[in-house]
Amino acid sequence: MRKNDERGRTLIYLDNAATTWPKPEAVYQAVDQCMRKKGANPGRSGHHMALMAGRIINETRGLIAQLFNIPEPSQVIFTSNATEALNLGIKGLLKPGDHVITGTFEHNSVARPLERMREQGIEVTKLPVSLSQGILPAQVEEAVLSNTRLIILNHASNVTGVINPIREIGKIARDKGIVFMVDAAQSAGTLPIDVQAMEIDLLAFPGHKGLLGPQGTGGLYLRENLSLVPLEEGGTGGNSEFLTQPDLCPDRYESGTLNTPGIAGLGAGINYIFQEGLEIIRRKERMLTEHLLMGLEEIPGVIIYGPPRGMERAPVVSFNITGKEPADVSFLLDKMYDIAARPGLHCAPDAHRTLGTFKHGTVRLSFGYFNTMEEVDQCLAAISAIAGE
Amino acid sequence: MRKNDERGRTLIYLDNAATTWPKPEAVYQAVDQCMRKKGANPGRSGHHMALMAGRIINETRGLIAQLFNIPEPSQVIFTSNATEALNLGIKGLLKPGDHVITGTFEHNSVARPLERMREQGIEVTKLPVSLSQGILPAQVEEAVLSNTRLIILNHASNVTGVINPIREIGKIARDKGIVFMVDAAQSAGTLPIDVQAMEIDLLAFPGHKGLLGPQGTGGLYLRENLSLVPLEEGGTGGNSEFLTQPDLCPDRYESGTLNTPGIAGLGAGINYIFQEGLEIIRRKERMLTEHLLMGLEEIPGVIIYGPPRGMERAPVVSFNITGKEPADVSFLLDKMYDIAARPGLHCAPDAHRTLGTFKHGTVRLSFGYFNTMEEVDQCLAAISAIAGE
Repeated sequence: MRKNDERGRTLIYLDNAATTWPKPEAVYQAVDQCMRKKGANPGRSGHHMALMAGRIINETRGLIAQLFNIPEPSQVIFTSNATEALNLGIKGLLKPGDHVITGTFEHNSVARPLERMREQGIEVTKLPVSLSQGILPAQVEEAVLSNTRLIILNHASNVTGVINPIREIGKIARDKGIVFMVDAAQSAGTLPIDVQAMEIDLLAFPGHKGLLGPQGTGGLYLRENLSLVPLEEGGTGGNSEFLTQPDLCPDRYESGTLNTPGIAGLGAGINYIFQEGLEIIRRKERMLTEHLLMGLEEIPGVIIYGPPRGMERAPVVSFNITGKEPADVSFLLDKMYDIAARPGLHCAPDAHRTLGTFKHGTVRLSFGYFNTMEEVDQCLAAISAIAGE
Repeated sequence: MRKNDERGRTLIYLDNAATTWPKPEAVYQAVDQCMRKKGANPGRSGHHMALMAGRIINETRGLIAQLFNIPEPSQVIFTSNATEALNLGIKGLLKPGDHVITGTFEHNSVARPLERMREQGIEVTKLPVSLSQGILPAQVEEAVLSNTRLIILNHASNVTGVINPIREIGKIARDKGIVFMVDAAQSAGTLPIDVQAMEIDLLAFPGHKGLLGPQGTGGLYLRENLSLVPLEEGGTGGNSEFLTQPDLCPDRYESGTLNTPGIAGLGAGINYIFQEGLEIIRRKERMLTEHLLMGLEEIPGVIIYGPPRGMERAPVVSFNITGKEPADVSFLLDKMYDIAARPGLHCAPDAHRTLGTFKHGTVRLSFGYFNTMEEVDQCLAAISAIAGE
């Protein structure tokens, strides 16, 4: 796996929670071959190349369904990223007077659409998050009101990696007839997800993180018999004669030309996950995370935020060095050691209010399948040197 | 320019109004190199590779501004296609009680969002379209009401290629203080566009058609001092501490991770247009269109829909063969002659009501810069053979 940037320098890329890099070679190939050989418009026209493009879309839809145990692939809606999927789910479902339960560790892609809906007469309850256990099911149960329409939570925090007890909360939602939406931005392709066993009604996921696809891809799983107001109307290929959107999923929610090359790459990314095995990927990312945490604990002046070592988590670690700005630490890691980290709030300001790290945030290191133990060691040596300065 | 599909067969691709194919080699290379060498998240983090990704975004923004004579590149908003740009402009601008003027030749990506807004208390006037001249400026002037907030029209019809007199209508809009939005789906990269000279306030364009970029790209130009309600809220990289979207353009409208590889390819596509010269491209596409029209006129049983030969138009030709279904003609062109055409309503049902071709539609042939006169001749021979059967 080559990890050279455009300067030809060997990077230690630890910003996989933003976008995974590098991608499997098959992903690059799939994008390129799609553009060169199958570059027509999917679901429009009827000529051979348009049908080939349409087949790519369907194949990737099928792979996503398989990965998340979605009973019907046509319930997978392609979006340009997880943010669009979250906006579609939130705005398409909620009506004035509805109540929503969420947490304080949500990304702005959940918090901001909810804030917008609040202005339109939606009531929002934000539950505090336990650093080691996430949102407790009992808290959720207590927060339910007669008008609670939606429970929306991330599967894992993008700041601390803490995992929410999705299965238990899904059961509560199902028992009470509340729609359950999960933001899988940090878990899709990294942690096992089963929308049926977890009672998930709406699952928003990016294509360019754990699923190893290109940027510009993502999607929303929508449980059958649940209908949303589309975020966008437009050409849907079929049913062109009507002035309103078709009822059919996914057509109803996929107006305009899809990102076929991106979706081809996403399919190759998911195929790679199937080949390697999600459990193998998860174990490797876990091992890297544990190794980093162990090393960080031994560096004087380092403060780690998040679940204690040994607990299940997403491969995301937030830390600070006493007396140093996260932005400065991240800058030095990049400049002196060619280590790509991310400093700041990570688009989740509420989480930092809880952690006491508002408003400079933390330094975040996040792993992907292509990181190595040697890279973790080099990173620990670099952090140790910066902390000792 | 290789034009083989994945079967290795040489295609005559005449579906460029849906998506242009093939792309310049530089487009394929730009996408690939972006993913392999600059695959980080633009506008997030501060490490070298993230900055490189951010630079790609800015470069393409600058190229778009240059092409359309947009005074300030930051007023270019990236979207995943023209449909998203149109939805953002329409829904972000209009409030209940507003009146909109549009035409009967609009694509569903305009007609359907307007229909949705009509349900929310927006009044819509649809002007009839002259087959040779498009919407007449006098019609627009007459249709203006005291509450007219928006005039929205395509630059050129995707069914007949007829061009609307954008400059004259822009002047009317400016004089009357009405926002003027143009759907450049069939003109961006094909006809000259100057948002200042044409008094365009909002310009929606796809990246994957005349601009020669990959699918999954598009954008919206928004005049300075005009603010829209965003279609989506979410992470914007900067200003993470606020629960509401930043006011700054483009951040306000670009939540979530952009399609960086796609935007890299789009930049390469626009660079290619600058290298070749828009005027050269326009003239070649015009010549191909005229050659096709001349040939079609001589085939007995062929009916052509749209402006007469010799008039300025987009490189789109709709026709039928008396007594034959458009879908059958298109099928034969593909199956017997490896010619990719598109039959049907082309997502513009109202246009076909005017043409008298509702609801089977027409066969559409649409040219790109990489088509040749020989291909037109082969296509004419094929249509002649089908018409003679």
